[in-house]
Amino acid sequence: MVATPRYFVGRDRVDSLPDHDRGLAYGDGLFETMRAVHGSVPWWPAHWQRLQRGAQALRLSLPAEAQVREEAERMLEGGDGVLKLIVTRGAGGRGYPAPEESVPNWILSRHPLPPATPSAGLALRWCETRLALQPALAGIKHCNRLEQVLARSEWADPDIHEGLVLSAEGDVVSATAANVFVLRDGRWTTPLVDRCGIAGVCRAWAVDALQACEARLAVTDVEAADAVFLCNAVRGILPVARLGSRTWRPHPQVMELQHRLAAAHPAFVTEVS
Amino acid sequence: MVATPRYFVGRDRVDSLPDHDRGLAYGDGLFETMRAVHGSVPWWPAHWQRLQRGAQALRLSLPAEAQVREEAERMLEGGDGVLKLIVTRGAGGRGYPAPEESVPNWILSRHPLPPATPSAGLALRWCETRLALQPALAGIKHCNRLEQVLARSEWADPDIHEGLVLSAEGDVVSATAANVFVLRDGRWTTPLVDRCGIAGVCRAWAVDALQACEARLAVTDVEAADAVFLCNAVRGILPVARLGSRTWRPHPQVMELQHRLAAAHPAFVTEVS
Repeated sequence: MVATPRYFVGRDRVDSLPDHDRGLAYGDGLFETMRAVHGSVPWWPAHWQRLQRGAQALRLSLPAEAQVREEAERMLEGGDGVLKLIVTRGAGGRGYPAPEESVPNWILSRHPLPPATPSAGLALRWCETRLALQPALAGIKHCNRLEQVLARSEWADPDIHEGLVLSAEGDVVSATAANVFVLRDGRWTTPLVDRCGIAGVCRAWAVDALQACEARLAVTDVEAADAVFLCNAVRGILPVARLGSRTWRPHPQVMELQHRLAAAHPAFVTEVS
Repeated sequence: MVATPRYFVGRDRVDSLPDHDRGLAYGDGLFETMRAVHGSVPWWPAHWQRLQRGAQALRLSLPAEAQVREEAERMLEGGDGVLKLIVTRGAGGRGYPAPEESVPNWILSRHPLPPATPSAGLALRWCETRLALQPALAGIKHCNRLEQVLARSEWADPDIHEGLVLSAEGDVVSATAANVFVLRDGRWTTPLVDRCGIAGVCRAWAVDALQACEARLAVTDVEAADAVFLCNAVRGILPVARLGSRTWRPHPQVMELQHRLAAAHPAFVTEVS
């Protein structure tokens, strides 16, 4: 089910990644990981908008949206799954200076859906790896992801589903591949992503749906929360059942949010049944 | 003179970068940029040792050194120039978890020598882009280089040769693609690279040659210095003539260091003539 990726340079399909790609050399690119259902990507506009914000921050050119979407839907062949798009700055010489006019390289790949979420909720741990504070890159989904790779390499136990990561200053930022929301005193909060972390597409949906507050969160804010969930655009709303020795029972507000997402986004219907 | 890169998976040569490469996806890899002379790389052992330190930090597998060196020398065909080696963690699925056993992908490319250094010395500027503090990745030459790309994109004026970059805390770290040394009160100092920055191969040579001190440096330490030079493994010792409005005349200790490097490393002989 993992199809061969498709490679493009500007408007043209090519057989493989062109030589001297700056994505490979420096992680000089952006990516989006999207949930597809019945051959299309319901959150396409939100993904493309985030890609545009990233392209603006990195001053790199994007391919034409209409063509990328058409190729994405062609690759899905009417099916479900996960679609990944990487866009790099394209070819560059040796060295950091970016060409004045660059033609982006872009790669589409299709992947199976991740395993279903345990019905009891996720088990989490705290990661030792901290996220460095870099406002110039915060929020965008760029291809410099060694911190996430290091954080995710801290455990191999399959009974731990995700890890929460702190910033260099000790505030809670996110899981390695999902955003986090906590319920405290009847109010939902998710960490700011202005210094590190990624502004997730599902995070934006949930902030709006819950009228959630964006703020710095301490470890104790999470551990003392009445409910916690993770979310991302591939897996939707993921209730958290355990964090170290702390446990939570299913919370009605999280279940209700899952139902709202399923109603808003057809890919997530099966998750709730 | 820019030859087609050569791609390898483990021991095998392949035609192009294999699908699902984690270097492309996440910058999950390392690189070395090496000066070659008469078909070989005089600093090979130092480059390989740094690569090994990086591989240890990222827990990724390296290809066999003897094969990489043989292929590198084959690619040089007895000539001079710059040789770049990228080693990535190899293929991975979608998502951050690294495969338990990975076969590295590696890429060799050959590039022309950079333009000769202006005989009067380099003109520098200060960059606005700051380097985030990330001790887990500091010192190693990994492929997450967006900060350097952003810093280098701050100027296009060809009369400015390099930019000095500060850490998030405001101490001087390096140039965008070179380390920096300053002479103060008769003593050479170069910034520590324990929180950000790269432990350059030429930097290590110069620390040893000058018995230089490694310490945090403030902007004023550089501006008040009696002499400043940059260095990297491709361009050797690069005297600095100007930083903003501050100028320096050629300093005998820098000229002497250039001569010592030329004596120790045949590639740099022409630089001094």
